[in-house]
Amino acid sequence: MKFICPKSELLNGLQVVSKAVPAKTTMTILECILVDCTQGCIKLTANDMELGIETIVEGTIEEPGVIALDAKIFLEIVRKLPDNDITILSDNSYQTLITCEKAKFNIAGKCGDDFAYLPEIERSNSIVVSQFTLKEVIRQTIFSIADNDNNRLMTGELFEINGDELKVVSLDGHRISIRKIQLKDTYEPQKVVIPGKTLNEVSKILSGETEKDVSLFFTDNQVVFEFDQTTVVSRLIEGEYFRIDQMLSSDYETKVTINKRELLSCIDRATLLVKEGDKKPIIINITDGLMELKINSAIGSMDEQIDIEKSGKDLMIGFNPRFLIDALRVIDDEQITIYLVNPKAPCFIRNEENSYIYLILPVNFTTV
Amino acid sequence: MKFICPKSELLNGLQVVSKAVPAKTTMTILECILVDCTQGCIKLTANDMELGIETIVEGTIEEPGVIALDAKIFLEIVRKLPDNDITILSDNSYQTLITCEKAKFNIAGKCGDDFAYLPEIERSNSIVVSQFTLKEVIRQTIFSIADNDNNRLMTGELFEINGDELKVVSLDGHRISIRKIQLKDTYEPQKVVIPGKTLNEVSKILSGETEKDVSLFFTDNQVVFEFDQTTVVSRLIEGEYFRIDQMLSSDYETKVTINKRELLSCIDRATLLVKEGDKKPIIINITDGLMELKINSAIGSMDEQIDIEKSGKDLMIGFNPRFLIDALRVIDDEQITIYLVNPKAPCFIRNEENSYIYLILPVNFTTV
Repeated sequence: MKFICPKSELLNGLQVVSKAVPAKTTMTILECILVDCTQGCIKLTANDMELGIETIVEGTIEEPGVIALDAKIFLEIVRKLPDNDITILSDNSYQTLITCEKAKFNIAGKCGDDFAYLPEIERSNSIVVSQFTLKEVIRQTIFSIADNDNNRLMTGELFEINGDELKVVSLDGHRISIRKIQLKDTYEPQKVVIPGKTLNEVSKILSGETEKDVSLFFTDNQVVFEFDQTTVVSRLIEGEYFRIDQMLSSDYETKVTINKRELLSCIDRATLLVKEGDKKPIIINITDGLMELKINSAIGSMDEQIDIEKSGKDLMIGFNPRFLIDALRVIDDEQITIYLVNPKAPCFIRNEENSYIYLILPVNFTTV
Repeated sequence: MKFICPKSELLNGLQVVSKAVPAKTTMTILECILVDCTQGCIKLTANDMELGIETIVEGTIEEPGVIALDAKIFLEIVRKLPDNDITILSDNSYQTLITCEKAKFNIAGKCGDDFAYLPEIERSNSIVVSQFTLKEVIRQTIFSIADNDNNRLMTGELFEINGDELKVVSLDGHRISIRKIQLKDTYEPQKVVIPGKTLNEVSKILSGETEKDVSLFFTDNQVVFEFDQTTVVSRLIEGEYFRIDQMLSSDYETKVTINKRELLSCIDRATLLVKEGDKKPIIINITDGLMELKINSAIGSMDEQIDIEKSGKDLMIGFNPRFLIDALRVIDDEQITIYLVNPKAPCFIRNEENSYIYLILPVNFTTV
């Protein structure tokens, strides 16, 4: 096998597919990136059996063939080569010569026969969103998936399509994040749960441009993302997702409008007094025109006041400061509105159109 | 005690003195920064008993006094406060209130009586260099101090003053780095060995401006650095430094002039094939007009050629690639000259004026 392509092209392709190379595996062939030049294009593939990525690199094939090369070494070599054309030449014993200008690297490759190619997926049910939108909606929801496997469904995100609306939901038992996206077209109703790991990796390789689109195809147990020269295939999480509608309510007793940046900075400061693993709540006291935030820990205490617009009852309520920070960080609005009922009921941070809803459960606290 | 000062001033002062707060200590008072407002200025001090730093912060003292505050917490709180005036107020029980705009932090301070102030040093023998020069000369030599304590003298750097020349030397048994600095004035001959840790920390807090100076004062067992509003006091390493003059020689059999960037990139690429802890040498074959670099490891092999200007004998010699990289990174010249004798003798990378000399011992190698 022999092909020539510019360093920048090859490096970009390798960085994209590397996201699907497993950190640990008993199948050593999966630590490789497969280079396939048998179908008239230079195709790179990596696959950890849950998530597979394939991308096409522009270049010239001089001799068709297939070779599997250790992902880490291959990527590092290409990264450090001069910015010029790179020639890759593999012989029948899989010895691979990588040359660029006067530099020559010789590494041992592997036969590609044992490599797990991506499954063929029937491309029927698809939806289209911009790369920007998909990248954003992942960032705005991914923080509230569960970080352990106790409940598999919580480690993924619900993607629910209804007409021209895409609803993305994540929850971890203490909070729910919901984002709604207006689609350009109308689609059949569908519901899938995509693993958080897949969404994280996809979000890293999306360029995030508004002019470029991603197509998502769904089957019963797989999802395919197609964009640029890249195809990502991932398993779906099986099972019925949580019924979140019954947890949402538009009733409230107290409504607060507040400057987001001020609230975020204040809570961020307060967390200085909370050591990792410590579960000190931040106590929020809402009265007419004023929100007072307090935290008390072994390290010290903090007290701060922020001007607000408030309607409804006065209220004192405690929260895990981390959960408030996570939600506030991904809201772009300058002024936000928080809806509360009582110290035991969840609070909602949402806009009027409900294009975002962040539900956060309060925590018990004792006032000294 | 009560004082008011702008956040930026206080933050900068805390960041400077923090460099002398010990990571681990049995004397918990040393984990604090001492704030002393008894002498008409706001003075911050930290001291790990080897290295002490003191700096003065601009502000208004409303009530003189002394307080010791946990360095980490104090720095973190100040870092996260709004960019405005900060008020620090300590009561008789050392409770300290830190306020800025509407934010109030309350932390427990400590009595400053047990704190180790910096020793009073007689400021007689001093030399003056620009902050830029001192910062640069540390960067250009610090990499070749020894990283273990087997020989204390190797963990420091020799600062030798002779007339209007400052010579800085570091060595670790495999290589020697020498830099010579032309001073503006002429001084009495002096020789001290300054701990590498001190130089590292000083280099971090030097602004590196060419217009600002540093004064260095030496006593028998201490060195003082004075710059901006800051004083750094450090112990010296005692003992007679190595006689390096007898290791230096200007004889050579082979002289090579080469583009520094090309050589550095090539060796940098070669190290990809060497795993951490593995001691594979890079083999350099010097012939007329051409340097060939080769490395062989379990991962693969590399081979690259670079055009050179050469006079004298052909030579094949092996080096630890790391040592070459370290020296090449801190040389600013575009073209460098390497002087070699034979495969067992050290090579010298130096300029004609000998304002820098990097000596590197070769390693044995077997050619296959």
